[in-house]
Amino acid sequence: MGSRPLRTVLIGAGNVATRLEQALREAGHEVVCVGGRERKRAIPEQADVFIIAVSDRCISAVALELQGVSGLVVHTAGSVSIEVLPQEHRGVLYPMQTLSKQRETDFRQVPLFIESYSDLPLLQELASSLSGNVTVLDSEKRRHLHLSAVFCCNFVNALYSMAARIAEEQGIPFSTLLPLIDETAAKVHTLTPQEAQTGPAVRWDTPVMQAQTDLLSDPQMKQIYSLLSQYIRDDKLRFEAHQGSAL
Amino acid sequence: MGSRPLRTVLIGAGNVATRLEQALREAGHEVVCVGGRERKRAIPEQADVFIIAVSDRCISAVALELQGVSGLVVHTAGSVSIEVLPQEHRGVLYPMQTLSKQRETDFRQVPLFIESYSDLPLLQELASSLSGNVTVLDSEKRRHLHLSAVFCCNFVNALYSMAARIAEEQGIPFSTLLPLIDETAAKVHTLTPQEAQTGPAVRWDTPVMQAQTDLLSDPQMKQIYSLLSQYIRDDKLRFEAHQGSAL
Repeated sequence: MGSRPLRTVLIGAGNVATRLEQALREAGHEVVCVGGRERKRAIPEQADVFIIAVSDRCISAVALELQGVSGLVVHTAGSVSIEVLPQEHRGVLYPMQTLSKQRETDFRQVPLFIESYSDLPLLQELASSLSGNVTVLDSEKRRHLHLSAVFCCNFVNALYSMAARIAEEQGIPFSTLLPLIDETAAKVHTLTPQEAQTGPAVRWDTPVMQAQTDLLSDPQMKQIYSLLSQYIRDDKLRFEAHQGSAL
Repeated sequence: MGSRPLRTVLIGAGNVATRLEQALREAGHEVVCVGGRERKRAIPEQADVFIIAVSDRCISAVALELQGVSGLVVHTAGSVSIEVLPQEHRGVLYPMQTLSKQRETDFRQVPLFIESYSDLPLLQELASSLSGNVTVLDSEKRRHLHLSAVFCCNFVNALYSMAARIAEEQGIPFSTLLPLIDETAAKVHTLTPQEAQTGPAVRWDTPVMQAQTDLLSDPQMKQIYSLLSQYIRDDKLRFEAHQGSAL
């Protein structure tokens, strides 16, 4: 990538650590991995950057273990403040992407959000060597961004799972829905979600909505159907009020 | 497209009618359009296919207006039975896609679901001239498929809208989320939604979930956050139980 090789220590063995390790190696950096379970293994005392990629609730414990080290210490969590790191040289490198061990990712396309007051140039150098999409963002905005990511990724994926269940119960394979899933995502590249909305709820077609609610046997899915339909209606009214006030 | 030109009459002026008109013309068919408002305009008495592409609740009224015509009468709705059409020559042509006037669609990629007992070959001929993805499906399965489409399209788009609101309130443009939205959709081409899931709810990371709930000021979004997180957890337990029983 044309950047100088850095010496990095990566702590963690989950989805983010797995994808990050591969990206670090591909960018030509030296990586010492200290996995989750075998953390008792000696952590090197010196490196350019120590990356804590463990689950959120374990970050501060790992950070304490790293108190004596010399180098920049960063974590990778969206919702955890930079303040949980006791180090003087500290930062955050948050990859806003759904990363899985079982799926290769083109890390150059992953949006990275970084924060550091002591060592921003070094963190910027590292981040830019991994991805073409790097933004500086503070902890307060980052936790909102992470919340937003939960809605448009984890919750969206939960709806894919519900759609799969409904279709598969009828012997219809989930793959039948992929063109619709793809177009729904592609559409918001050129229209706002409010402009892109279609379907029974935005038309407030109550006979169809009632019939669809009756089809659902799972009480959880019934409730989700009702809440999301109501949101779509309210969102439309907000959108129309906004358009009216803009005239 | 190499198919013979058919004489079609298209009733409707909404999103589906707009996209269908374009697809019919591009496939070389003759189209007489009878728009929603100007429906008083004389409807031709004879055509190969009459297509009713109006909102669900108006289909049976329009079908009654077409009682004297000679030709196959079809509607385009996912959740409406073929039985609402009183004609002897009747059918359904359901495009399972989110269609908007403001957005061009490659109609050749749109999954079409067709149903007809009297005239399946003619309907198959028409559908295949419009799309490369045609499936015969009865009314009962079609309404389940439509329900499934509401979850993975309209409801997903509602979550995009929520994510946009959260990000934009922080001055972060919605476009920041597009790589995540795209990868979330791309991921379920190769993994099941259950395998693809990531984030705080699937790890049941309650401190993060509590902090995220606290960030939400909109009570509707708070409730959606809680319901979808609970679904993700239950879905994971179902998945693990299923894997266990498969061993």
